[in-house]
Amino acid sequence: MAPSTARQIMDVHPTGFGLIDRKKLDAAISAMQVASQAASVCADACLNEGQIKDMRECVRTCLDCADVVDAAVRTLSRHAGWEQSAAPTILRAAVAVLDAAGHESARHASMHMHSRLASEACRKAQTACEELLDSLAARS
Amino acid sequence: MAPSTARQIMDVHPTGFGLIDRKKLDAAISAMQVASQAASVCADACLNEGQIKDMRECVRTCLDCADVVDAAVRTLSRHAGWEQSAAPTILRAAVAVLDAAGHESARHASMHMHSRLASEACRKAQTACEELLDSLAARS
Amino acid sequence: MAPSTARQIMDVHPTGFGLIDRKKLDAAISAMQVASQAASVCADACLNEGQIKDMRECVRTCLDCADVVDAAVRTLSRHAGWEQSAAPTILRAAVAVLDAAGHESARHASMHMHSRLASEACRKAQTACEELLDSLAARS
Amino acid sequence: MAPSTARQIMDVHPTGFGLIDRKKLDAAISAMQVASQAASVCADACLNEGQIKDMRECVRTCLDCADVVDAAVRTLSRHAGWEQSAAPTILRAAVAVLDAAGHESARHASMHMHSRLASEACRKAQTACEELLDSLAARS
Repeated sequence: MAPSTARQIMDVHPTGFGLIDRKKLDAAISAMQVASQAASVCADACLNEGQIKDMRECVRTCLDCADVVDAAVRTLSRHAGWEQSAAPTILRAAVAVLDAAGHESARHASMHMHSRLASEACRKAQTACEELLDSLAARS
Repeated sequence: MAPSTARQIMDVHPTGFGLIDRKKLDAAISAMQVASQAASVCADACLNEGQIKDMRECVRTCLDCADVVDAAVRTLSRHAGWEQSAAPTILRAAVAVLDAAGHESARHASMHMHSRLASEACRKAQTACEELLDSLAARS
Repeated sequence: MAPSTARQIMDVHPTGFGLIDRKKLDAAISAMQVASQAASVCADACLNEGQIKDMRECVRTCLDCADVVDAAVRTLSRHAGWEQSAAPTILRAAVAVLDAAGHESARHASMHMHSRLASEACRKAQTACEELLDSLAARS
Repeated sequence: MAPSTARQIMDVHPTGFGLIDRKKLDAAISAMQVASQAASVCADACLNEGQIKDMRECVRTCLDCADVVDAAVRTLSRHAGWEQSAAPTILRAAVAVLDAAGHESARHASMHMHSRLASEACRKAQTACEELLDSLAARS
């Protein structure tokens, strides 16, 4: 499989993205982009389901997820040489919203396929973020 | 190739995403996510290049690109049944920032590989957005 | 009244923000920030109202509004000397989402005070964006 | 002084925003919106200063600040009744980027007025976020 554009462009960054594990960073960024978009569609789909009272919390956690995860993708794509002091805290916030959206969506997964797909996307992104967090901790 | 999560989740949306061409919508969303992240990395990489005066406009257009394109991904992922009145105007704004960032990055493509990769990603996303715009116009 | 931080910081920008009408830019940015946040709260409040089927479109247009308007605030805060080619197109997208959210919220204004407040905030921001657009057109 | 639109619209939310301290929430949201926009302008202004090598880290921390803080404003404006599990983690991420941008900007405050204004705006927002965090902790 051809390397992602995200990976290619990190590899040619003038500083080489420093000591960070680029494979894990690329995996986290890709998984977060999938999860963010899935959460946006899931929130929208929930609005058309019959039992909106049951779906309200799912709408809200999915919207939070898209907002925080998009900010994480941006900030993790930045900082040549990768001395970004706020990165672990931002990743923890991403993990928190991915966990909340993954959990809420999973509650509706047997009823709604969009909830199942969003839940799976959030879980994958959460795992990728946790692995990146671990590698940042090991480095410092 | 397995369908993207974006496509799968659109396909199970309770309203089926209405009359919109889901293949083109999926292509535009995927290409915009690649371009947005590439623009974020390119803006950051430009800051580390020697001739910053030459790179300033590239930083700015790449940042604009990420901001507007991310908003477009969000709003295009929304609106069950797809009666979103503002969609064409948002897509035109995405095309404008992708064009500006693609053009500015192309000016540095022979010097900096990150500029070349970002430029290519912006051009692809611009084309995908224009094709989606055309299909929206044809529909109405 | 003391000048806003937005205005103060534009006034000390090394390029003076060029030929743009800073008073109108400041007014548009301030009004958009108020409208974006009001739209976010209104979308959330709508989820707790009884007749969700009636509120769905209001949720969606309010979310679009926050997404596009925040991107507009970012991009309009950028570009020293203010030669931003994409600005008019971005402003038109902001006007489109503010118009849609203002219109949808106005439909519920007699029932829900949050809709009325959001509608008013969107209308004010729309007017400020239109005045800025006019001044950009007059300049060029 | 008339209450802010943000405060008025929270006050009429169908759930009353639950047990959260709305005065502190409003103060944090307002201060974050000022800081985010100031950070966007400061990042742009830094690109036009002479010694770009010295300003690079300021550009990056200011961009991170705008990205994360805007996501915090969105997510804190959401969740009727305010049972948002991820809120403290998101606020801590906002505090981290505000601290980084406030610190970096302060290093240039004697040279550049835009850095001083951005630094002050970040410090105020950081304090408001910390006070909101304290009130959330006290509540639970």
